[in-house]
Amino acid sequence: MRPIVAVIGGSTCSAEEAAWAGEVGRLLGERGAILVCGGLGGVMAAAAQGARTAGGLTVGLLPGDDPRTANPYIDVPLATGMGEMRNAVIVRAVQAVIAIGGGWGTLSEIALARRIGTPVVGLHDSFKSSVDIPRVEGPRAAVEWALEHARSNTV
Amino acid sequence: MRPIVAVIGGSTCSAEEAAWAGEVGRLLGERGAILVCGGLGGVMAAAAQGARTAGGLTVGLLPGDDPRTANPYIDVPLATGMGEMRNAVIVRAVQAVIAIGGGWGTLSEIALARRIGTPVVGLHDSFKSSVDIPRVEGPRAAVEWALEHARSNTV
Amino acid sequence: MRPIVAVIGGSTCSAEEAAWAGEVGRLLGERGAILVCGGLGGVMAAAAQGARTAGGLTVGLLPGDDPRTANPYIDVPLATGMGEMRNAVIVRAVQAVIAIGGGWGTLSEIALARRIGTPVVGLHDSFKSSVDIPRVEGPRAAVEWALEHARSNTV
Amino acid sequence: MRPIVAVIGGSTCSAEEAAWAGEVGRLLGERGAILVCGGLGGVMAAAAQGARTAGGLTVGLLPGDDPRTANPYIDVPLATGMGEMRNAVIVRAVQAVIAIGGGWGTLSEIALARRIGTPVVGLHDSFKSSVDIPRVEGPRAAVEWALEHARSNTV
Repeated sequence: MRPIVAVIGGSTCSAEEAAWAGEVGRLLGERGAILVCGGLGGVMAAAAQGARTAGGLTVGLLPGDDPRTANPYIDVPLATGMGEMRNAVIVRAVQAVIAIGGGWGTLSEIALARRIGTPVVGLHDSFKSSVDIPRVEGPRAAVEWALEHARSNTV
Repeated sequence: MRPIVAVIGGSTCSAEEAAWAGEVGRLLGERGAILVCGGLGGVMAAAAQGARTAGGLTVGLLPGDDPRTANPYIDVPLATGMGEMRNAVIVRAVQAVIAIGGGWGTLSEIALARRIGTPVVGLHDSFKSSVDIPRVEGPRAAVEWALEHARSNTV
Repeated sequence: MRPIVAVIGGSTCSAEEAAWAGEVGRLLGERGAILVCGGLGGVMAAAAQGARTAGGLTVGLLPGDDPRTANPYIDVPLATGMGEMRNAVIVRAVQAVIAIGGGWGTLSEIALARRIGTPVVGLHDSFKSSVDIPRVEGPRAAVEWALEHARSNTV
Repeated sequence: MRPIVAVIGGSTCSAEEAAWAGEVGRLLGERGAILVCGGLGGVMAAAAQGARTAGGLTVGLLPGDDPRTANPYIDVPLATGMGEMRNAVIVRAVQAVIAIGGGWGTLSEIALARRIGTPVVGLHDSFKSSVDIPRVEGPRAAVEWALEHARSNTV
């Protein structure tokens, strides 16, 4: 089975965060991972675009009812109609999570992931530096960490 | 955007239903559609296997927590942890639904699809022949119907 | 523990259905049951109004985000924001279900209840007379059936 | 409409947290609010017990399938079967949230509440003192804050 990894972060983001997300996406694509994200802009779009450049497969779990709200780099746009509740599905459905920046929505995903035992790693100055999760220094280290810690089964 | 179509039916099924599901999957794959299903056995596995033979992309929205419960023809196994509530996500996330046989779970998907306006078609002797949905005579007609009626947006 | 029983049916209904629902609600209230419903109009409002006249407690699991969409007879309006997906929560959270009339939404609840093992009974000419569920002749028999078959635990 | 307020916190907690939760529950009960919580032990049980002593109404949105897992002070135990996803329903369904201690689950609720605009206040040394939410010094101030900031409608 291909690894399934989520990249989470804000729907708007800094240029640096976008660059990191793009590189994370590209590396995940090269490693054959399926990229899952929230399907919208910012970090989500940058990661999906990166994965596409490496031939990766991208899935967007959208909060609303319309698949056309997905960013253009999403291969499988799934409009859940669940609102922010879809955050819980994202971290449940993947084997590991990479967090890049973000706000309250991203923090909710980090906390839900920790709660249910999905491994989560943050890039070094990711949102809420005070939140106690493992940190790595760059995209390559983040992808290595995620693939190494990816859980093989339910927790 | 590629059309996204669900094939729904029982996790166990008759040989005839499996043959229909396989043919429906194959035709959806040929037409470039993304196949979404519940990810388990029976009609779901047969449809995914058919889609695979035509190079199609298959997504399984699983009820439980373990992606390894997916049938072997699922490219994107998403373990939602939502139980039967995932039925509502399946019919929300797709543009059209094809029903082949099935039991109470399938009937819940048909009813939820109708409730939210997702077009649904049944093969001729599909479950609950008394339920008022359009019927067609075979896999090819079902796929034509689904692609023709696929909604382009939210309802 | 007080029994928890759902009354399901359309948000619009006939005068006869409203009368049945009101009587079912009243009898549930007299028996000390907690009434759960979708919180909107029609059968849901009539049942809640009936329960109120007997001093019963009423809970509405609303599809939208605004508790003020609840009918005025709901003591506990819970705005789930889940859309029709809340139908699955209703039948999961109760020990038995009484169906009175209704359309696709009600049928989805009947099917989901059967799928997960929540006992469901229909009044005699309830929606989809062809659907295979137990039928009874009137409100008193429905309430008796529901309280007798109420599951004491998870299935 | 009675105010609906959530009290969130760990299923195990310190004696001080339990005392605060009990006092918060009691004050909410005195003010006629409906108390919503996750239905389990620790802060949830203490808050519900406090509300009961003041004649308040208590609702538990349980993660699992069995209403008998609710603490004994819950009037309306709703077994959602949604796992940790029910955290999103709790903060959606209430008009304000009071956080007392807690771990990752509580942090997910705080973040989800902030994400969707439900007002949330923390007691002074609540979990993750680094998380940017309003803080108050004691149970009475927390209840005052919650009732004052309770949103009257959807955000």
